Amino acid sequence: MANVQIDLNSDIGESFGPYTIGLDEDILKVITSANIACGYHAGDHNTMYETVKKAKANGAGIGAHPGLPDLQGFGRRHIMVDPEDVYRFVTYQIGALKGFCHVHQVAMNHVKAHGALYHMAATDADIADAIATAVKDVDRDLILFGLSGSELTRAGKNHGLTTASEVFADRTYQPDGTLSPRSEGQALITDPDQAVQQVLQMIYDNRVMAVDGTPVAIEADTVCVHGDHPHALTFVEQLRGRLHEEGIDIRRVGA
Amino acid sequence: MANVQIDLNSDIGESFGPYTIGLDEDILKVITSANIACGYHAGDHNTMYETVKKAKANGAGIGAHPGLPDLQGFGRRHIMVDPEDVYRFVTYQIGALKGFCHVHQVAMNHVKAHGALYHMAATDADIADAIATAVKDVDRDLILFGLSGSELTRAGKNHGLTTASEVFADRTYQPDGTLSPRSEGQALITDPDQAVQQVLQMIYDNRVMAVDGTPVAIEADTVCVHGDHPHALTFVEQLRGRLHEEGIDIRRVGA
Amino acid sequence: MANVQIDLNSDIGESFGPYTIGLDEDILKVITSANIACGYHAGDHNTMYETVKKAKANGAGIGAHPGLPDLQGFGRRHIMVDPEDVYRFVTYQIGALKGFCHVHQVAMNHVKAHGALYHMAATDADIADAIATAVKDVDRDLILFGLSGSELTRAGKNHGLTTASEVFADRTYQPDGTLSPRSEGQALITDPDQAVQQVLQMIYDNRVMAVDGTPVAIEADTVCVHGDHPHALTFVEQLRGRLHEEGIDIRRVGA
Amino acid sequence: MANVQIDLNSDIGESFGPYTIGLDEDILKVITSANIACGYHAGDHNTMYETVKKAKANGAGIGAHPGLPDLQGFGRRHIMVDPEDVYRFVTYQIGALKGFCHVHQVAMNHVKAHGALYHMAATDADIADAIATAVKDVDRDLILFGLSGSELTRAGKNHGLTTASEVFADRTYQPDGTLSPRSEGQALITDPDQAVQQVLQMIYDNRVMAVDGTPVAIEADTVCVHGDHPHALTFVEQLRGRLHEEGIDIRRVGA
Repeated sequence: MANVQIDLNSDIGESFGPYTIGLDEDILKVITSANIACGYHAGDHNTMYETVKKAKANGAGIGAHPGLPDLQGFGRRHIMVDPEDVYRFVTYQIGALKGFCHVHQVAMNHVKAHGALYHMAATDADIADAIATAVKDVDRDLILFGLSGSELTRAGKNHGLTTASEVFADRTYQPDGTLSPRSEGQALITDPDQAVQQVLQMIYDNRVMAVDGTPVAIEADTVCVHGDHPHALTFVEQLRGRLHEEGIDIRRVGA
Repeated sequence: MANVQIDLNSDIGESFGPYTIGLDEDILKVITSANIACGYHAGDHNTMYETVKKAKANGAGIGAHPGLPDLQGFGRRHIMVDPEDVYRFVTYQIGALKGFCHVHQVAMNHVKAHGALYHMAATDADIADAIATAVKDVDRDLILFGLSGSELTRAGKNHGLTTASEVFADRTYQPDGTLSPRSEGQALITDPDQAVQQVLQMIYDNRVMAVDGTPVAIEADTVCVHGDHPHALTFVEQLRGRLHEEGIDIRRVGA
Repeated sequence: MANVQIDLNSDIGESFGPYTIGLDEDILKVITSANIACGYHAGDHNTMYETVKKAKANGAGIGAHPGLPDLQGFGRRHIMVDPEDVYRFVTYQIGALKGFCHVHQVAMNHVKAHGALYHMAATDADIADAIATAVKDVDRDLILFGLSGSELTRAGKNHGLTTASEVFADRTYQPDGTLSPRSEGQALITDPDQAVQQVLQMIYDNRVMAVDGTPVAIEADTVCVHGDHPHALTFVEQLRGRLHEEGIDIRRVGA
Repeated sequence: MANVQIDLNSDIGESFGPYTIGLDEDILKVITSANIACGYHAGDHNTMYETVKKAKANGAGIGAHPGLPDLQGFGRRHIMVDPEDVYRFVTYQIGALKGFCHVHQVAMNHVKAHGALYHMAATDADIADAIATAVKDVDRDLILFGLSGSELTRAGKNHGLTTASEVFADRTYQPDGTLSPRSEGQALITDPDQAVQQVLQMIYDNRVMAVDGTPVAIEADTVCVHGDHPHALTFVEQLRGRLHEEGIDIRRVGA
């Protein structure tokens, strides 16, 4: 089958001041899109400078990774922000990262919302619209990442943006297309073979089997992977190797 | 005398969250360049959004006003930052404000460092170089503001930037060209006539009389004014009126 | 009628760094309990120092006013914090204010949660329990303020704390005892006479008439008042004057 | 020789939100005094809760470790703060940690300033006085740690506080009693035997040999050690073992 491609994306650049998090050097070797924290939920100007530089050196697509203003909570706690506020802090964060793209003479490729903001934008149409509008208004050539089937990808398409539907290799799905909550027993996929099969089915058949066996329609442009632990890194390497063996072209969205 | 022009610049957009500071609406009516806080020493994404919008509506030149990371100290306390750090946080702050310029479809015109950073850059060649390099690397068309005769304007010129030499209407000068410290009795000029005379002499003769009568060479591209109190506002209005009567063309630097 | 007393409490000490909010000097003249911000949603160590000093000088009961960690949102945005986290940041904030009580040699009298935290604690039993437990563990002599009939006063009583039930003079009530949402037309009481009548009824009859005429049982130990605007201040002065005329003893809770 | 004792102190509790720093569990097993970050330069309310609990469980003396308000710079950058500000933020931080001491029903034993604040207080008499006064005003039973021979220990004595003079096992000294700058070749002592000899000489003879051989008078109540790396930990274990063999009583100051 010609021209079957997938992107592997990961959150990086989350260190702050004296604090280091993530195996950025290692994960950059195996991903094709880097979501770079912009100083609200994680990261700072020093980390951003270094991370854009490293991502460019590794050929990864560079993405802004805006989050809620909550360093202490790492952007994972829901905060009741209104859409106008979201529009503005997404604008701020994309702009800030763009500064470093100019400095390193590299183009920004995409935007992916972080943590609680990502989850809010998946189901809240107003939050989703605020993010999509900010991306369009700052730079309409940016690709908007969002959960497959979410309000966010819908909003991006409404605004004429190129969107990338994100899927998960290590999470199971519910019949309605959402991820199974981590509180449930079957939420995580730890067997690399099963993960690869899930991704292949999403790529080739545009569907995933929910935990109850229901087939769910899905678009798979990019797979979310993690580099926060050595174990996670191994998982990504295995996934990437298997996808490569299958003849899938692993490259950044838009390339 | 043909083509004699001067710019009036003021710091605005310094409100944060629930906190309001400055008579931004009023001062925007009389200045030609707006230095907009970028979230480190003051301002936030909501203030920045509103301030760029207002500045555009008033036809003021829009400038990034990067400061030290110190909201509590309003960027006025010296912090021992190294030049590499300065380069990066200036890049971050210019980038962030550029986001709002994109959103409002208006060009950024200039950069002016704030508070303690401004003073450090006046005399510390390494800090000055870091700021000038950041401006150049992010956008070499930006005009770099700096104290007349300072290391900062020198660094800007070294890097091929257009610079604007800043003078003060309401402050006296020392024989070495620095401002008289506020702790001294003669530091402030409160008489509008005296202020106007000082500015006119700086514009026409390229010099200012120091407190001891010594003539000091000076370049006057832009005058720093304030809109934080009704009294300050009146002073600016008087200054502007008198300069206008003198036939000075009051317009933003670079226009 | 012997011994009928009421407390008037207000939030103060909300200024931060260069930013000033609130007519603290004025409101302190008319209230009996001061809820002092502790640096999370507002206030800082300088404000706290000055505010404890002023509150002591005015004879107001001194209270810690812990809030969510959200200066930008002024503690008014709901953040999904878990009870363990609440327990700890309430402990932190009470402790910090106690430092200033030691320095000024004055006892701390009470604790009142701020903004979104106050509202969360009114209906969420786990959040309420976390706050009450923190108060008890830090200093069991502190009086816990909470909305009359709320989970918070209930939790305080469960833990053996002295509680003070708070009522509002300028807000109407729903049949279930909650405040009418500000989005409704009848939410605010702007007529001082009506406000006084509501407070008197709450004091004498232990009930309030809901917007639909339903009588609602209520305890009235302290009335929440505001000093953020000159108009609000006038309202409090009128309320205080009328309560005094009625022979109500206006004094801080616990005195 | 009867009653010869020394304290080993270390900075702990420096983790923040999602970020972990330091081998706190391990270093607590070998030190006798724990300097616990209070949320300004490092640490947060969750870390403080856990750290006081652990320190108590290990029998370490619990100390507040106030720092400059600079999470990004880890409190290591000099900030031009005035003494009044220092007095207040030291009060705030001690108070906050005291909250957790109440909660865990353990007494606070000492205060040690952190990083740049520590260094400023060693030579700036006004900063030193501000810290000592804050400690006295919050709780005059707290022991004030400071560099041996510094302005800080002098200020503490002036205010009638018990002070503990701090020495270093892994750093060399200048003839004036200050530590050799890290920029110099001989600044660090990496040989455990040499470190032990230096400490023993300081304990028994109240002096240390400067890098040029000059004997310098010194008081040695507590030795500063580190637990940020496995190597540092090993060094402390060796030091502790050797001091024990020498018959030195290793116990917290004041015990």
